[in-house]
Amino acid sequence: MEQIKQTILNKVIRPRPLHSYKGNYGRIITIGGNYNLGGAIIMSASACVYAGAGLVTCATDKHNLNALHTRLPEAMFVDYSDFSDLLENLTKADVIVLGPGLGLDKLAQNICQLVLSNLSLDQLIIIDGSAITLLAANPGLLTYLKKGQAIFTPHEMEWQRLSQIKIADQIPLKNKQAQLKLGQTVILKKYHTEIYHPECDTPHQLTIGGPYMATGGMGDTLTGVLAAFLGQFSSAPLTDVIDAAVYTHSAVASKLGVNNYVTLPSAIIAELPHFMNCTIKE
Amino acid sequence: MEQIKQTILNKVIRPRPLHSYKGNYGRIITIGGNYNLGGAIIMSASACVYAGAGLVTCATDKHNLNALHTRLPEAMFVDYSDFSDLLENLTKADVIVLGPGLGLDKLAQNICQLVLSNLSLDQLIIIDGSAITLLAANPGLLTYLKKGQAIFTPHEMEWQRLSQIKIADQIPLKNKQAQLKLGQTVILKKYHTEIYHPECDTPHQLTIGGPYMATGGMGDTLTGVLAAFLGQFSSAPLTDVIDAAVYTHSAVASKLGVNNYVTLPSAIIAELPHFMNCTIKE
Amino acid sequence: MEQIKQTILNKVIRPRPLHSYKGNYGRIITIGGNYNLGGAIIMSASACVYAGAGLVTCATDKHNLNALHTRLPEAMFVDYSDFSDLLENLTKADVIVLGPGLGLDKLAQNICQLVLSNLSLDQLIIIDGSAITLLAANPGLLTYLKKGQAIFTPHEMEWQRLSQIKIADQIPLKNKQAQLKLGQTVILKKYHTEIYHPECDTPHQLTIGGPYMATGGMGDTLTGVLAAFLGQFSSAPLTDVIDAAVYTHSAVASKLGVNNYVTLPSAIIAELPHFMNCTIKE
Amino acid sequence: MEQIKQTILNKVIRPRPLHSYKGNYGRIITIGGNYNLGGAIIMSASACVYAGAGLVTCATDKHNLNALHTRLPEAMFVDYSDFSDLLENLTKADVIVLGPGLGLDKLAQNICQLVLSNLSLDQLIIIDGSAITLLAANPGLLTYLKKGQAIFTPHEMEWQRLSQIKIADQIPLKNKQAQLKLGQTVILKKYHTEIYHPECDTPHQLTIGGPYMATGGMGDTLTGVLAAFLGQFSSAPLTDVIDAAVYTHSAVASKLGVNNYVTLPSAIIAELPHFMNCTIKE
Repeated sequence: MEQIKQTILNKVIRPRPLHSYKGNYGRIITIGGNYNLGGAIIMSASACVYAGAGLVTCATDKHNLNALHTRLPEAMFVDYSDFSDLLENLTKADVIVLGPGLGLDKLAQNICQLVLSNLSLDQLIIIDGSAITLLAANPGLLTYLKKGQAIFTPHEMEWQRLSQIKIADQIPLKNKQAQLKLGQTVILKKYHTEIYHPECDTPHQLTIGGPYMATGGMGDTLTGVLAAFLGQFSSAPLTDVIDAAVYTHSAVASKLGVNNYVTLPSAIIAELPHFMNCTIKE
Repeated sequence: MEQIKQTILNKVIRPRPLHSYKGNYGRIITIGGNYNLGGAIIMSASACVYAGAGLVTCATDKHNLNALHTRLPEAMFVDYSDFSDLLENLTKADVIVLGPGLGLDKLAQNICQLVLSNLSLDQLIIIDGSAITLLAANPGLLTYLKKGQAIFTPHEMEWQRLSQIKIADQIPLKNKQAQLKLGQTVILKKYHTEIYHPECDTPHQLTIGGPYMATGGMGDTLTGVLAAFLGQFSSAPLTDVIDAAVYTHSAVASKLGVNNYVTLPSAIIAELPHFMNCTIKE
Repeated sequence: MEQIKQTILNKVIRPRPLHSYKGNYGRIITIGGNYNLGGAIIMSASACVYAGAGLVTCATDKHNLNALHTRLPEAMFVDYSDFSDLLENLTKADVIVLGPGLGLDKLAQNICQLVLSNLSLDQLIIIDGSAITLLAANPGLLTYLKKGQAIFTPHEMEWQRLSQIKIADQIPLKNKQAQLKLGQTVILKKYHTEIYHPECDTPHQLTIGGPYMATGGMGDTLTGVLAAFLGQFSSAPLTDVIDAAVYTHSAVASKLGVNNYVTLPSAIIAELPHFMNCTIKE
Repeated sequence: MEQIKQTILNKVIRPRPLHSYKGNYGRIITIGGNYNLGGAIIMSASACVYAGAGLVTCATDKHNLNALHTRLPEAMFVDYSDFSDLLENLTKADVIVLGPGLGLDKLAQNICQLVLSNLSLDQLIIIDGSAITLLAANPGLLTYLKKGQAIFTPHEMEWQRLSQIKIADQIPLKNKQAQLKLGQTVILKKYHTEIYHPECDTPHQLTIGGPYMATGGMGDTLTGVLAAFLGQFSSAPLTDVIDAAVYTHSAVASKLGVNNYVTLPSAIIAELPHFMNCTIKE
C-alpha cells in the first residue's frame, strides 16, 4: 500500500486565484438527516462550508430546518420530502453528498432512487452511511453510476454489505477486486483508512489520525470535507483531491488531538479554515 | 475610476457622542429569508446588529423565528406574511433591507409591492438579491422610489436583469448611464466591486478583499453592514457612508483572510465590533 | 446626587461560603418574550444565570422554547399562557422579572394581573419594559405591591407614563417625589442612570458606561443581573445590592467597550462570571 | 470516610489504544427532558459526548429536537413518547441515563417502567433526579435491577425519599445500611459528596469543588460524565470509574472556578476534552 503523505496538501490546496467568485468553488447539495439523525447532515454541510465550498444546500427532514440555520446560516435548506424541490436543487449541484443520517426507511429508499436516477454525467456523488446499505440491498441503483462518478465511504460492515466480503476477509487484494467490479472510488474507513482509486493499482493508506477520533459524527464530517474539495479543486487530479480531503480531515483531528482527549466533529469543522490556510503558507 | 481608500473609515466611523442612546443609531428592518433561505436574512440582521445599529427587526418566514433568536437575541421578529404587522414595523424604520433570501414567489412579489408602495420620503432602502430580480421584472415598482433613496446591491447577473446590459458589456460608462436612469445608488458586486453614486461622475472602486470571500452569504452580510452604517452615521455624506460600509465589509474579511482559507460570514459578523473600534483608535 | 462608586462591588459581591448550594442563590422566574420579542426574555434569563442565580425559570411564549434551551440549557421553560403552570412556578420564586419583551396585548395584561395579584410578601419583583407601560395604564395593579417590594426599570418615556412627569421635567426633585408616592425603587435609565431608593433621600447616580451600550437588549440584560443579585446577595442591604447590579452591568460593558465599538448584550452576558470573579480578587 | 484523590484520574483515564473505534467507547442513551426541562437532558447528553462516549442518543420530548441538534449535532434523537423507538434504542445501549428533567407525570412514570423492565443484565443505568423520586414512590421497580447495576445520584432530599432517612439523620452509617439494602451504588450529592459503593465498606468522599458549582444543571452534567466514563473505561474497576467521573466533574469546575464566580454547566462541558487530555499527560 502507498501511504498518503503530507505533501498531498500542497498539491491540492492551492492559493485561490484573485479573480474568482463563489461559483468557482462548487455548488454542493448534502442529502440526509432524518427525524432522528439530523445532526449528521448538519455536520456534513458544516464541514463542507468551512472547508471552502462555494454554495451549500442541505436537503433534510423539515424538523432540522432551525438547527441547520442556527449552526450554519451560510447553507440553504430543502425539505427532502418535497421531491420537486429536491430535484430542482439536485440538478444545479456539482457535487452531491448522499447518506449521512438518511436512515433506511421507505422515504430514504425513494430519495436514493430519485438521486441516483437523476444524476448527470458531470456530477460527482459521495455515497455514505445508510445510503451504502440501501444500495447494497438494491444493487440495480448502481447501474445509474458512470464509472468513477461516485466515492463510497463505507466502514467495514458497510463494505461487507456492498462488496460481500466479510470483515475478516477484507484484505487489499480482495477489496481492490471488489472496487474494480464496482467501478467507483472506495474509501474504506478503519484503523489506517484505505482508499481504492479506480486509477491506481495499489490502495492508498492514511497513517495519521488517532483514537481521539473515535466518536460519533466523524464520518459525516469527512463527507463534507470531501464534497468541498471536489467542488473547489476540480482542476487537480481526482485521486489527489480525494486523498487530500481524507488527509485534511485526519490532520485537523491530529492537531486538535494534541490538546483534547476526544476531537469532536464540531471542533474539527471550526478549525478547517485555519488549517487549510496554514497549508498554503508552508 | 476612483479607488476607495482606507481613510474613508475615519471619515465615517466616528467616536460616539457620550450622551446618546440607541434611538440615535437607527431603527432597521431587514426583510427576507423564505422557507428555504432563512440563513440569508439572519446573516443580514446579525451584521446589522454587530455593526452597531440601534434597533434591528427581522421580518422573515415564521419558520426562522427560533434560528433568529438563537443566533441573535438582540433582534426582534416579525412574520413577514402578516402584512399588518409588517407594515407597522416598516413604518417605524429608518432603514430597510429588502431581499436577502426573499425568493421569487408570489409572496415575495407581494412583499416587494407592499414595501415599495409604503416607503416614506425619509427612509432609505437597500435592495438586494431576489428583490432586484423582482423589481427588474416589475419596473413599475421603481417609480415608488424617490431619487437617491435606494441602494441596489446587484451581482453582475442581477445588474444585467435590472439594467439590460449584458455582463460582457458592463463597462463603467454604460453602467453609469444605467445608474443615472435608475436614479439610485448601485453597488455592483464583482471582482473589485464598483459603486455608482448619483452624486459622483466617476464610479468608486473597491480594491481590497480577496478570494477567501468567495462563499455563500457574503452579499447578505454586506446588506447588514450597509444598513447599520446608514442608520448610525446619518450625519456624514451618504456617499461616504456607503463607501465606508463596503470598505469595512471587505477589510474585516481581509483581516480574517490572513489566517483563514475562507472567511465565513459568521466570522466576519463576529469581528465587526472589534474592527470598528480599531478604526477609531488609529 | 450621590455617585455609585466601584467600592460597591466589594461590599456586595462576596466570596461564596464554601458550604452552600444552589438553593442559597435564589430561585428566579423571568416572565416575558412574546411571539415577536423572544430574544428579550432570553437575554434577561441568560444574564440571570451568568450572574450567578441559583435556579432560573423562563416563562415565555411557547415559540421561544427552542431558542431558550439552545442558548441557555441551564434554564427551565414555562409556557406563560398556561396560567396554572405559570402560577405554580411563580409561587416558588424568590425574585420575579416581569416585562422584557412582554408586549402590550390582552395576554400581556392578563399575565401582569396574574403576577401582581399573586405576589407573596417575601418576593421581590423587577418590573421592566412593557410591564411598566401596562401598570401605568392600569394603576390599580400597583396596590398589590408592598412598599419597597418592586424595582421599576423605566427609560425616560416609560417613567413619564408611570409618573406623569414629562421627560423635560424629570429633575431629581420631582422624580423623588414621584418615587415616594410610588413607594418602590426606581431605576431611571438614561445618560447617567439615576436610582431612587425608598431609603435614600438623594438619588444614586451611575457615571460609568458609555455610548457603546446604545443597542437593543441592554435593558433586558440589566433585569437579569438585578434578579441574580437580589437572589444571591440577600444578606446585603437592598440598596447596595441594586446599586451593585446596575454598576456591574455597566462596568462589564465598559470593560468590553475598550475593544469593541458596540458592546452587545450577548457579549456582556458571557463576561459576567469572569468579571464578578475579578471583583472578589481585587 | 476515604477521600478520593487526584491519582484516581490516572488510574482510569488512560491513553486510548491506537487501534480502536467508537464502538469501543460505549453506546449511551440519555433519557429525560420533558416539555419544561429540555435543557437538563441536553446538558447530560453534551457532557457525555464531550467526556468521550463513543455514540450518544438522546431520548426526550419532541420539542427538544432542535435545541439538541443545535447544541450537539454529534448526538442522535429519539422521541421518548414513541415507545417502540425508545425500546429499540434502549436495547442497543451499554449505559443508560434516566432522569434529568424527566418530570413526574404519567408519561415519566411509564418511561421509568419501560426502561427498568427492559434492562438487560450487562447494561449499567444511572438513575437521577425525578427518576429517583419516581422509584422511591414505586419501589417495585427496584426489583428489576440486578445488584450493582445502577448508580443513583440523589441530592439529600431525593435520598430521603429513596432511603426513608431524614436529611438530618443522613450519617454515613445509616446511609451505608440503606445503600446495602438498595444493593446499588449511591452518589449522595451534597457539600463534600459521598459515594457509597457496594464493594466498599467505607464511603468515598469528594473534597474538591466549591460553591461556584451552586447553579442549576450541575447534577445533569454529572450524569453525562458518569455515563461516558462507564461506557469507555469498562476495563477499569467500576468503583474507580465512578470515583474518577465524580472527581473529573468537580476538578473541571475547580479549574474554571479560578477565573469565574460561577462555573456554568455549559462551560464545564466544553472544557472536558482538554481536561481529560491533561490528565494523561501528567
